[in-house]
Amino acid sequence: MVDKLKQEQVRQWIRDENREALLHAFEDLHPADAAEQLAGLSPSEVARYVELVGPAETLPIFEFVPFEMQRETLEHLPRSILPRLIELMSPDDRADLVEELDEKSQERLLSLLMQAERQELLKLITYPEGSAGGHMTTDYAFLRPDVSIGTALDHLRMQAPKKETIYYVYVVDLARRLIGFLSLRDLIMEHPERYVREVMNKNVIAVRVDQDIEEVAKVMSRYDFLAIPVVDAEQRLVGIITYDDVFDVMAEEATEDMYLLANLDTDEKITSPLPRSVKLRVPWLLVNLCTALLAAYTVSLFSDTISAFVTLASLMPIVAGIGGNAGTQSLTVVVRALALGQIKVHGNLPILLKQVGIGLFSGLICGFVMGAVAYLWHHNIWLSLILWMAMTANLVIAGSFGAIVPITLRKFNLDPALGSSIFVTMATDVGGFLTFLGLATLLLHHLMGP
Amino acid sequence: MVDKLKQEQVRQWIRDENREALLHAFEDLHPADAAEQLAGLSPSEVARYVELVGPAETLPIFEFVPFEMQRETLEHLPRSILPRLIELMSPDDRADLVEELDEKSQERLLSLLMQAERQELLKLITYPEGSAGGHMTTDYAFLRPDVSIGTALDHLRMQAPKKETIYYVYVVDLARRLIGFLSLRDLIMEHPERYVREVMNKNVIAVRVDQDIEEVAKVMSRYDFLAIPVVDAEQRLVGIITYDDVFDVMAEEATEDMYLLANLDTDEKITSPLPRSVKLRVPWLLVNLCTALLAAYTVSLFSDTISAFVTLASLMPIVAGIGGNAGTQSLTVVVRALALGQIKVHGNLPILLKQVGIGLFSGLICGFVMGAVAYLWHHNIWLSLILWMAMTANLVIAGSFGAIVPITLRKFNLDPALGSSIFVTMATDVGGFLTFLGLATLLLHHLMGP
Repeated sequence: MVDKLKQEQVRQWIRDENREALLHAFEDLHPADAAEQLAGLSPSEVARYVELVGPAETLPIFEFVPFEMQRETLEHLPRSILPRLIELMSPDDRADLVEELDEKSQERLLSLLMQAERQELLKLITYPEGSAGGHMTTDYAFLRPDVSIGTALDHLRMQAPKKETIYYVYVVDLARRLIGFLSLRDLIMEHPERYVREVMNKNVIAVRVDQDIEEVAKVMSRYDFLAIPVVDAEQRLVGIITYDDVFDVMAEEATEDMYLLANLDTDEKITSPLPRSVKLRVPWLLVNLCTALLAAYTVSLFSDTISAFVTLASLMPIVAGIGGNAGTQSLTVVVRALALGQIKVHGNLPILLKQVGIGLFSGLICGFVMGAVAYLWHHNIWLSLILWMAMTANLVIAGSFGAIVPITLRKFNLDPALGSSIFVTMATDVGGFLTFLGLATLLLHHLMGP
Repeated sequence: MVDKLKQEQVRQWIRDENREALLHAFEDLHPADAAEQLAGLSPSEVARYVELVGPAETLPIFEFVPFEMQRETLEHLPRSILPRLIELMSPDDRADLVEELDEKSQERLLSLLMQAERQELLKLITYPEGSAGGHMTTDYAFLRPDVSIGTALDHLRMQAPKKETIYYVYVVDLARRLIGFLSLRDLIMEHPERYVREVMNKNVIAVRVDQDIEEVAKVMSRYDFLAIPVVDAEQRLVGIITYDDVFDVMAEEATEDMYLLANLDTDEKITSPLPRSVKLRVPWLLVNLCTALLAAYTVSLFSDTISAFVTLASLMPIVAGIGGNAGTQSLTVVVRALALGQIKVHGNLPILLKQVGIGLFSGLICGFVMGAVAYLWHHNIWLSLILWMAMTANLVIAGSFGAIVPITLRKFNLDPALGSSIFVTMATDVGGFLTFLGLATLLLHHLMGP
C-alpha cells in the first residue's frame, strides 16, 4: 500500500521546505493511510514535516503513526513545537505515548507543558496499563440534567470538535456523579423543549477505573456499546472508553492467549530483534527442559524392559505424542471458553467430566486403530493390547489435565493459559511413558512370547 | 448473574398469563441482561412469553437471546406471531437466524412472510457466511446529495428508529452508487442551509460485498470506523457493517486460529455434546497418529543402537519434545503476524531467516544446558556432546518449519494455522530422533567408552 514514488516526492518537499505542497500532499488520503506513508520516512524527516506543516494540521495523521515512530519523532522536534503537538493530542493517546518515553524525555516534556495539562497527564499515566483507567480518554461529552434538549444540542455542538465521541453523552450531577446517559440519536429525536432529566436513560452501565480492561472489553461487546463511562469509587465520571479501544484490546488479548498457550513471552513481536527473541524464548524452553527431564527419568526407570524388548522404544513416543495433542485440544477449548466468559470459575465439574469422557472415547478409538496398525507391523497381539490400554489411559489423563490446569490457574487469579501447555504435556508425557512401559513391564513375559 | 428467584417468578407469570407483570419484569435491565434471564427458561416458555408480551415489545430482548434458543423458540411460536417477530428483526440478524433453520422450518417461515420481506431475506442468505454480505445489514441511513443539511436532519429523524446506526449516513446518487458520507457529528455542526453535496466527505472507503469478513474487520479497526459501507461490483450501496459485528468477527477469528493451532475443528464449542466433540477430534488425532508413526519408524531404524546403549531411549524424547515446543513458538508468532497483517505473503525471507537464527541460538543455549545436566546424570561427555549438537540442529529445524509451514499454507490460500502444528511437530519429532540417534550411531564406539 505504500507508494514509494509519493514517499520520495514528500521527502523532496521536506528538503525544499515546500509547506504548500506538503499541506496538500495527503489530502485525498485517510489519515491512517497518510500515516503509513509517513512511517517510511526517518524520524527526523517526520519531525521536520510536523514543524513545516504545523502541529494542528499534522495531528490527525500523527495520531495514526506507529508508537515507536511517534516516540522517536518527539525527540527530533524543537521545543517550540513539541508542547503544542502534545497538548493537541487526545488525552489517552498522549498518556500512552508519554508512558513509553524514557525518564529524561518524560521530564523534558512535562517541564514544557502548562500546569493544567501536566496535572492531567500525570493523573492518567498513574493508572496501570491493564486497567480501564489506562485506556480511557477524558475527552467525553457531558450534560447537566436540568437543561433542555435544545440547549443540550447547542452545548454538544460546542463540545463536539474536541470530544472523542458525542454519540453518547453522559449526564452528571453537581458532584460529577454519573446519573444517566443519552445517545445523540435520542437527542435529535426528542422535542427540544423537554429536559435532559426527563428523557435520559437512568440505567447506565459503567465500569470502575481500576477494572481490568479485558473485562471492560467483554462488557462492551456483550452490550454492543459504542462507548462506556468509567467512574471512580464515588461513582464520579472520570472518563470514557470507546469501541475502537476495544478493537485493540480484543486483538491484544487474543495474541496474549495464543502466545501463552505456545509458551511465548507476550512481549515478543514479529519485529523483535533476534537477540531479544532468543532472550524471551529460552527461559520457557528451559522450563520445558525440566519437565522433559522428568519424562526422561520416567523412561529410565524402565531401561531393563526396553533392553529386553527394544520395539517399545519406537512406540512409546506415539503414546506420549497423541496424548500431548489431545491434552492441547482440551486445554485450548477450556482456555478459550474462560477467556470468552463462556464458563465460570466455579461449578465446572461437568466441564471436567466432559473432557475426561472425550479422552476416554477418543482413546478407545485411537488406541484401537494404533493397536491394529502395530499388529500389522509387529504381529504381536499383546503389544497391540498394551498400546490400546495405554493410549486410552493417557487420553483420559490428557482430558483431565487439559481441563484442571487452566481452571486451577484461573482460581489462583493467574492467566489460565500461563504455562498451562507445559503442565499438560508433562502430564501426558509422564503418563504416557508410565502407563505404556509400566504395562509392558507387567506383561513382559507375554510380550516376549513363549 | 442469573437471578434464579426472578426466573421462577417470570415462569410463574408466564403460566398465569400475567401480561402486565411480564411487560414490566425486565424494565430495569439492559436487554442483554434480560435475555440472559430468559435463556434459563425452556424454548416453549420463551415462545409463550413472546406471544403474551407481543413481538414488538419483546424484540430488543429477543435479539440478544443466544442463537440456539432463538431457533428453538421459533419452532414453538404460533403462525400468528412468527412472521411478525421475524419481520421486526434487523435484516442481518434475521438472515443469520434463518440460515440456521433446517429446510422444513425455512420453507414454513418463508411462506409466512410477505413478498418484499421474502425477497430481501432470500438475497441476504445467499451471501456466503464468511463474506461482507453475510454480515452486513440493509438497515442503513442514506441521503441524496441535493438536499440541505436541515432537510437531511429531518430525514434522519424519520429514518432513525428503524436504522442500525444513524451516526454515519451515506450519500448515494440516483443509480444508488455510493458517492460520499457524512457523520451525524458533521451534520449537527453544519449550517442547516448548506447542501449535503457541499459538505459530504467524498473519500469514502467501502468494502465489496464478496470481500472476506476478516479483511473487513481489519479495515475497520485500521481506520477506527464505526461502520463501513458495503458495495456491489457497480459501486452501488447494498449494506453496512457496524462496529459491533467487528467485535464478534474478531473474537471468532481469534478462536479459529487458536483452535486450528491446537488441531481442533472450528465447529467444536465448549457446549458441544460429548459424542460430537469426540467425532470432531478423533480425525485430527488420527492424522497425528500417522505422523507419529513416521517418527516411530525413524526410531525403529536405530533399534540396534538403542539396544547397545539403552540410555538413548530415555533422552531421545527430550530432543524431540523441546524441538516441538520451539517449533510451536515460531509457528505461533508467524501465524499471529499473518492474521494481524503484520507480515505479507511475499518477501518474507527475513522472517524465515530470523526464526532459523532464533532456533540456532536457543539450540546452542538449551543444548548446552541439557548436555551439562546429562553429564551430571550419566558422566558421559560424548553423550552430552551428541545431545548438544542434536538439540541445536533440531531447534534450527523447528525455526525453519515454524516459519515455512504457515507462510506456505497462506500462499496456497489456506488458513496458515490449518494443520500446521501437526506438520511442525512431525518435522521436529523426525528431525529430533534422526539427528540424535543418527549422531549416536555414528559415534557409538565413543559413547560405549573404551
